[in-house]
Amino acid sequence: MNHKNFGIGIDLGGTNIKAGAVDKSGKILFKTSIPTEAGLGYKHVIEQIVKAAKIVADKSGKPDGVGTGAPGVVDFKTGEVKSPPNIPGWGNVNLKKILEKELRFRAVVENDANAAAIGEYIYGAGKQNGTFIMVTLGTGVGGGIFFNGKLFRGETGGAGEIGHVTINYNGRRCNCGSYGCIEAYVGNSRIVADTKKKIKVVKNTALLDLLEGDLSKLSPKVIFEAAKAGDEFSRDVIAQIGEMLGAALASAANLLDISTIVIGGGVSGFGKFLFEPLRRSAKKRVLAPLRPRLKIIRSKLGNAAGLKGAAALVYYKE
Amino acid sequence: MNHKNFGIGIDLGGTNIKAGAVDKSGKILFKTSIPTEAGLGYKHVIEQIVKAAKIVADKSGKPDGVGTGAPGVVDFKTGEVKSPPNIPGWGNVNLKKILEKELRFRAVVENDANAAAIGEYIYGAGKQNGTFIMVTLGTGVGGGIFFNGKLFRGETGGAGEIGHVTINYNGRRCNCGSYGCIEAYVGNSRIVADTKKKIKVVKNTALLDLLEGDLSKLSPKVIFEAAKAGDEFSRDVIAQIGEMLGAALASAANLLDISTIVIGGGVSGFGKFLFEPLRRSAKKRVLAPLRPRLKIIRSKLGNAAGLKGAAALVYYKE
Repeated sequence: MNHKNFGIGIDLGGTNIKAGAVDKSGKILFKTSIPTEAGLGYKHVIEQIVKAAKIVADKSGKPDGVGTGAPGVVDFKTGEVKSPPNIPGWGNVNLKKILEKELRFRAVVENDANAAAIGEYIYGAGKQNGTFIMVTLGTGVGGGIFFNGKLFRGETGGAGEIGHVTINYNGRRCNCGSYGCIEAYVGNSRIVADTKKKIKVVKNTALLDLLEGDLSKLSPKVIFEAAKAGDEFSRDVIAQIGEMLGAALASAANLLDISTIVIGGGVSGFGKFLFEPLRRSAKKRVLAPLRPRLKIIRSKLGNAAGLKGAAALVYYKE
Repeated sequence: MNHKNFGIGIDLGGTNIKAGAVDKSGKILFKTSIPTEAGLGYKHVIEQIVKAAKIVADKSGKPDGVGTGAPGVVDFKTGEVKSPPNIPGWGNVNLKKILEKELRFRAVVENDANAAAIGEYIYGAGKQNGTFIMVTLGTGVGGGIFFNGKLFRGETGGAGEIGHVTINYNGRRCNCGSYGCIEAYVGNSRIVADTKKKIKVVKNTALLDLLEGDLSKLSPKVIFEAAKAGDEFSRDVIAQIGEMLGAALASAANLLDISTIVIGGGVSGFGKFLFEPLRRSAKKRVLAPLRPRLKIIRSKLGNAAGLKGAAALVYYKE
């Protein structure tokens, strides 16, 4: 095919590199996925990134540019990606320069949490007003702050770390070294570990039946299945996540005076079982002037958020 | 006297109206204070404000403008002050228009927390880089966010509510209706009430001697006096405030990627007894990239912060 007016997006993950052509309206024209193969060294990973982009360009035509969402610390001005987790030996690589040299297209590189927020602004739920807090619920809790159509980056590009807003200063240790960060309660692995503990106390839940007694199969997805099937225990687990998340989001909304919050990432798939208690919790906790304006909505980009966020970088102007 | 290049600042409080002439370097050329007399009605209060400004102008000459810091909700664009607490009957008054009509000087009106932050930027600790979080510790905990020399206002001018960042989502009820807000622990009256409870348990402290056994005399000032005199109990009380405040500030610093925090207001008078545990707490809680940059400093404006913040409005451009 020979499309026009589209961007190539590359979503660099520890396991797979997803790449695709996304047009200006957010429609995916073509997509592919190749293994990252981080075990073969960082130079190989760079070759895989270039290869993925070339596959898309060969299938789709000349793009307006190529955007990459990369994990870890990214200097969006220079295009340097610093020591992304899960890619050993990487160090400090100027991915923008490499991609521009290899592909001859304009390249933009961003931290993946920022790319998700930019994706919401260009294609998703943040399109309307350009002022929102983006929250991505997954292994970790990531975020981004959009204000008047611009990403608020802070001093070094690190702003938006909603995952490390504390909800309990005497609470459990977080991987970051602090205590009681919201990520320490609602990150994927913490949800699974906490739910296992609760099951061992309660013993008799529909969730346990669904797992056929095998706790090693427990995942957020199974908890959601059980909740849908009417399991009160699983609904309570998800409601508790909503309650805690509401506290962290209320702190952020109060501090920023931003009333629209967009929730994406795997855990947002809990749907109404999450969103109802989350909205209740946040609403009761924000300051009175914010309360009538508060809007907590689900990302519209779904599973393709990483890919669309990366492609959106091509169309985002600061 | 007939000065030039100065601003008139008016600090509107529930009890007193402080007014003064402040030059461009932050030097107070003249100051006065007259009673607010809120009990005599809001129209009388407005007359008192005008009177205070006229006293200053008569003594100092023609100012570059007159800035007013007012409590409560202020629309800085229009100059409207909405229902300030402690001034019954006020409703919605366009103070900017009234002052410009009565005085024939350019008038600027701001919320007092914003004025404090602007004062730090123009005259104080925020002068150097223009990127900092301002925190005012008093009856309540107020705040302001400065980024690249501009106040970050949020959607409606309400940004910077650091007092309503939670440190414990299951914690005590705050006046705002939420739970565990930092203000619910380190606001003046909460400090006094909590310390009274602790004294009743401990019984034997140098602080109690200093109060001559009369708990009704307890105030943050007396706690500070006892701490200076070596009282471990009082030092622990202040250290605990620092520990909690550090948690709220770390949440804000992580979210904003802003590493300079300026602390003002009466409670900041606790000095090193507050700042040492506060810095320790915040440092251990912020994300690793922020840690080496983190700077928590005391406001340089001291007791005159309200007045200087109001005068600074004349020189602040957005």
